[in-house]
Amino acid sequence: MTIQVFGHKSPDTDSTGSPIIWAWYLNEVLGTPAEAKLLGEPNTEAAFMLKRWDLPKPAIISDVADDAPVVIVDTNNPAELPANINGADIQAIIDHHKLVGGLETKGPIDITVRPVACTATIMHDLIGGDMAKMPDAVKCAMLTCILSDTLEFRSPTTTPHDKAVAEKLAGELGISIPDYAAEMFAAKSDVSSFSDAELLRMDSKEYEVAGTKFRVSVLETTSPATVLDRKASLIESMKTVAGEDGVDQVLLFVVDILNEESTLLVPNDLVRTVAAKSFDARAEGDSVVLPGVVSRKKQIIPNLKL
Amino acid sequence: MTIQVFGHKSPDTDSTGSPIIWAWYLNEVLGTPAEAKLLGEPNTEAAFMLKRWDLPKPAIISDVADDAPVVIVDTNNPAELPANINGADIQAIIDHHKLVGGLETKGPIDITVRPVACTATIMHDLIGGDMAKMPDAVKCAMLTCILSDTLEFRSPTTTPHDKAVAEKLAGELGISIPDYAAEMFAAKSDVSSFSDAELLRMDSKEYEVAGTKFRVSVLETTSPATVLDRKASLIESMKTVAGEDGVDQVLLFVVDILNEESTLLVPNDLVRTVAAKSFDARAEGDSVVLPGVVSRKKQIIPNLKL
Repeated sequence: MTIQVFGHKSPDTDSTGSPIIWAWYLNEVLGTPAEAKLLGEPNTEAAFMLKRWDLPKPAIISDVADDAPVVIVDTNNPAELPANINGADIQAIIDHHKLVGGLETKGPIDITVRPVACTATIMHDLIGGDMAKMPDAVKCAMLTCILSDTLEFRSPTTTPHDKAVAEKLAGELGISIPDYAAEMFAAKSDVSSFSDAELLRMDSKEYEVAGTKFRVSVLETTSPATVLDRKASLIESMKTVAGEDGVDQVLLFVVDILNEESTLLVPNDLVRTVAAKSFDARAEGDSVVLPGVVSRKKQIIPNLKL
Repeated sequence: MTIQVFGHKSPDTDSTGSPIIWAWYLNEVLGTPAEAKLLGEPNTEAAFMLKRWDLPKPAIISDVADDAPVVIVDTNNPAELPANINGADIQAIIDHHKLVGGLETKGPIDITVRPVACTATIMHDLIGGDMAKMPDAVKCAMLTCILSDTLEFRSPTTTPHDKAVAEKLAGELGISIPDYAAEMFAAKSDVSSFSDAELLRMDSKEYEVAGTKFRVSVLETTSPATVLDRKASLIESMKTVAGEDGVDQVLLFVVDILNEESTLLVPNDLVRTVAAKSFDARAEGDSVVLPGVVSRKKQIIPNLKL
């Protein structure tokens, strides 16, 4: 039976590219039939990667069948996976997030979690000497994943190993990292085709603080003004999104990749308190700049207080 | 702060030896202060290993402090770990059991789970070229763990890789595997100093089937008659143990290592039904032989029905 390889819902670049990398490895190196899948439409940067390197867009699936063999990459959180995930036959997990509990397997399986910036970096190491067999397009996906998750090495999640792997790949591929990253970030920053609600849900994780449920959304962009121009309607849309998704409040951090800072939208006093207690930031109006804050994993979630 | 490395409660050989192996690696190779710990008295085989290779017995701890750095080996089950485990700073997990869910980490950490017979086999691979620096006594612990978990390669959990690692170690150490395994199993089979309740809890995992909670206990021995001589008092003791431990029934499988079969004690009709439905075995009296059954993980738990 063909193994389905997928990342998390609302797929970003790593959750789009890593399934492609691992399905290649299973098929072409290990000889195990496998297919990359997506749990939703890829974001603009991920869509750019597919088009740029002529990689077929993986099919989108909504759930998995009982006992279907699957490999989970780039998450270990059941909330970010198909509803029936624990009914599937989970064969492996490759991830770089904290363990949240909740996933169960029917037997002992391969699980590899490493504290690096990107799933693709871990795959590079697991593939080892077989990297020599990897086609350029798949290597390009690997490079794109690492540049995306590290924000071209700007994110504090970046480890020296992520950087070394990306630089090795770029060298082999003859790609200039600064030029290519600029292309990627321009693609990611083109959000004109998305509704406000889509932007609020595009790169978002639920997180609870002191009984209050937040949807913690980030928008990484080289053009924050494009997003902030829509501030009023984004704030208006937060109530609807929160209501539909069963959370108390949406937090939107507009991450300015190039200037390495975030702007947090401040629709009400609840978020004003969050800004003050979490980031020691006094929000006078309906937004506040947080210098140096670019990583939800390392800087936003661990500091969130109410 | 010194990292505490420990396996599961009721430590067997792998949960005693693997913490010693990994603490050595952290201290002597990675230069990170670490200490092996135990979550209870080691079983007779594990105690034999410590004495035979002059390894200091790790200190026994009953719980872990908030934010104490720990490495968990040979389990990922919170029920088999200190009560405050999710309050500790879990830095790594190395295991070969199915994922049961429930462990949470504060950030992304190193997690390595592999479907092999023994934690020590995984450590061998993770240590890689630094195996050359490992002292003989620690290598002996590694060999003992693998021979114990594979029942000298008889258990169906054994992979070719476990066997290859053990044979490589034995060659380097100049140890005859058949002779040494016989010594180990004789040590494990000497259960004369244990009470019935201690035997029922010595190597035991809780497992629920259709709302009924079982304590699934195995006793691996080269001398099943020694245990079966105590059948009447073991059966008598089951009620007390079940009551004290909050389970409905203790199942005791006496595993005959050399003849590769188990004897299941049958104290009542509930266990008679379990024997019939799970193993197609008709129990006339107060015990029933299950030919070929030696592994709780591969043969007992997956088949348990009611």
